[in-house]
Amino acid sequence: MKPTIRDVAKMAGVSISTVSRVMNAPETVVESKRLRVLDAIEELQYQPNSFARGLIYRKSYTLGLLVPDIENMYYAGMIRGMQDACIKLGYGLMICNTDRDSERLLSYIDAFHEKQVDGIVLASDMLFPEYYDKLVGCRIPFVMVSSHSDDYDIPSVEVDDEAAAYDAVKFLIELGHKQIGMIGFNHANSISGPPRCEGFARALREFGLGHNLEKVKYASHRFEHAYEASHELFSQYPDTTAVFCVADEFAMGTISYLKDRNVLVPGQVSVVGFDNIRMAGMFIPKLTTIAQPIYELGYRSAEQLHELVTTGSVNVTREKMRHKLIVRESTRER
Amino acid sequence: MKPTIRDVAKMAGVSISTVSRVMNAPETVVESKRLRVLDAIEELQYQPNSFARGLIYRKSYTLGLLVPDIENMYYAGMIRGMQDACIKLGYGLMICNTDRDSERLLSYIDAFHEKQVDGIVLASDMLFPEYYDKLVGCRIPFVMVSSHSDDYDIPSVEVDDEAAAYDAVKFLIELGHKQIGMIGFNHANSISGPPRCEGFARALREFGLGHNLEKVKYASHRFEHAYEASHELFSQYPDTTAVFCVADEFAMGTISYLKDRNVLVPGQVSVVGFDNIRMAGMFIPKLTTIAQPIYELGYRSAEQLHELVTTGSVNVTREKMRHKLIVRESTRER
Repeated sequence: MKPTIRDVAKMAGVSISTVSRVMNAPETVVESKRLRVLDAIEELQYQPNSFARGLIYRKSYTLGLLVPDIENMYYAGMIRGMQDACIKLGYGLMICNTDRDSERLLSYIDAFHEKQVDGIVLASDMLFPEYYDKLVGCRIPFVMVSSHSDDYDIPSVEVDDEAAAYDAVKFLIELGHKQIGMIGFNHANSISGPPRCEGFARALREFGLGHNLEKVKYASHRFEHAYEASHELFSQYPDTTAVFCVADEFAMGTISYLKDRNVLVPGQVSVVGFDNIRMAGMFIPKLTTIAQPIYELGYRSAEQLHELVTTGSVNVTREKMRHKLIVRESTRER
Repeated sequence: MKPTIRDVAKMAGVSISTVSRVMNAPETVVESKRLRVLDAIEELQYQPNSFARGLIYRKSYTLGLLVPDIENMYYAGMIRGMQDACIKLGYGLMICNTDRDSERLLSYIDAFHEKQVDGIVLASDMLFPEYYDKLVGCRIPFVMVSSHSDDYDIPSVEVDDEAAAYDAVKFLIELGHKQIGMIGFNHANSISGPPRCEGFARALREFGLGHNLEKVKYASHRFEHAYEASHELFSQYPDTTAVFCVADEFAMGTISYLKDRNVLVPGQVSVVGFDNIRMAGMFIPKLTTIAQPIYELGYRSAEQLHELVTTGSVNVTREKMRHKLIVRESTRER
């Protein structure tokens, strides 16, 4: 039988709560008792168990992550960063995949509540009032990554989507392109969709290329949808020579479409992606893209949540991380 | 204040253990008491919490997954299947990324033990004696997915790697290829590496092409390593016209290498992958590959673990799932 806190208390001749205090706030226990407890822990090779710890301290040393799509390569890198931060900070990480389904998301909050996670990271999703109410009702501290809330004062970390999109489009313009299209997120509740459209528009206006403003087609989060959106874009605007895609997976879908139509990338059309997922450097051609610090976003969000859980607040509420244009093979001078 | 089991017991005028029995084994409670408890639960909107449940029943309703590389696209689909099974079966899924580091893996078993997961799925890794001893020492039921153990009697689910590799190579031979190479797993402790080599060898021998047996180069799990391995293969055997790669990511690395050397795929060289990750259909050219039922492997392993956790054994210890050759664009008749 595994020794319990009860066995330790019995051997040391103290109460269970004294053993617990020795483990969690040793300075509150007089030395003689403390030494007896430590001897008993040593002797019995006692390992505290998180259930008991949870009941006493309401801490489970677990963080929860709500991720909209576990198969999206963007989240793989983010989870890795988050996990590494959790290792450093002493948490386990429990990941749940919501499939962008709000009922599923709400039921996961219930599940996290039941498991008494110490805090939750909400990735990419909008913070709807029903999510907020549920989280606040469950009294679970939470932060947002690759997202933010305009309506509530919730810690978040993300890149500057507007500025990043602007940089991508400006780069295409500086290569000499004058007919520029965009494949954007069509998700009605997309957080990063609107600012990336704004960045596209700002660059076009600034360089007197406003005639391109209407050349935007929308796709959901998968490759196949971007393939179809590209078909619409090029059917309607066949003279397009450059496309800004708001995700690397969209850039792959666009290039795949063009390849199937025997249009050369970058020979005839230049394509810029967004994210710099691990696959971006493997694709043929290798993608020119806006790199998000994906690993760092995940890492930082876990640190931010830890700060919130342990101190009740964070130093910087809306943190921004730097993006960076990475030029590879999918773009060329016009 | 959230109502506790204590509040329910008080309102119903019964003991706490009666409330617990009503929730977990209602047939053991006389009807009059049962109805009083159910009324109180309803009235108070009581939600049982898993810590308390865990202390009473030693069940946490959580499964743990040890995955060797969260950034490997193979695991994204598997996690998705596992998660869907967990939803159906009422478990949370806690995922930990081991980076194929045995110390990290052992420390995660400790963490899972501390959180008292009901069971663990070990993905792809070898079951070393130290892992086995640790898991048995912690009394955590576990199963293996995309792996198996020859030394221990542990439930597992995977494809038939030897037969799948054989099918891939036979397909290349039937296309008329006579100079065939292979990019295999170089990981000393790879589970699927050796049988895939054996399948390669069996097909070659069967068709009198034994002169190709030595044309095997090895790579670790990433794209870049396969790129280098291809360089070795084609430097040493420049007349190679077909390559069997034991992972889709290796096929992408091989194609990328050939592309950089201006060798056409499939025009001059045919390439077959393995796995059928989501990316396989997006790549240029789209990959011909051996499809593993990735989602189903994940789903089935969670079901198997549930069976083990709830009944103490499984019906079929070493389950095999079917693979399937999917012909796309990266192969052509010689």
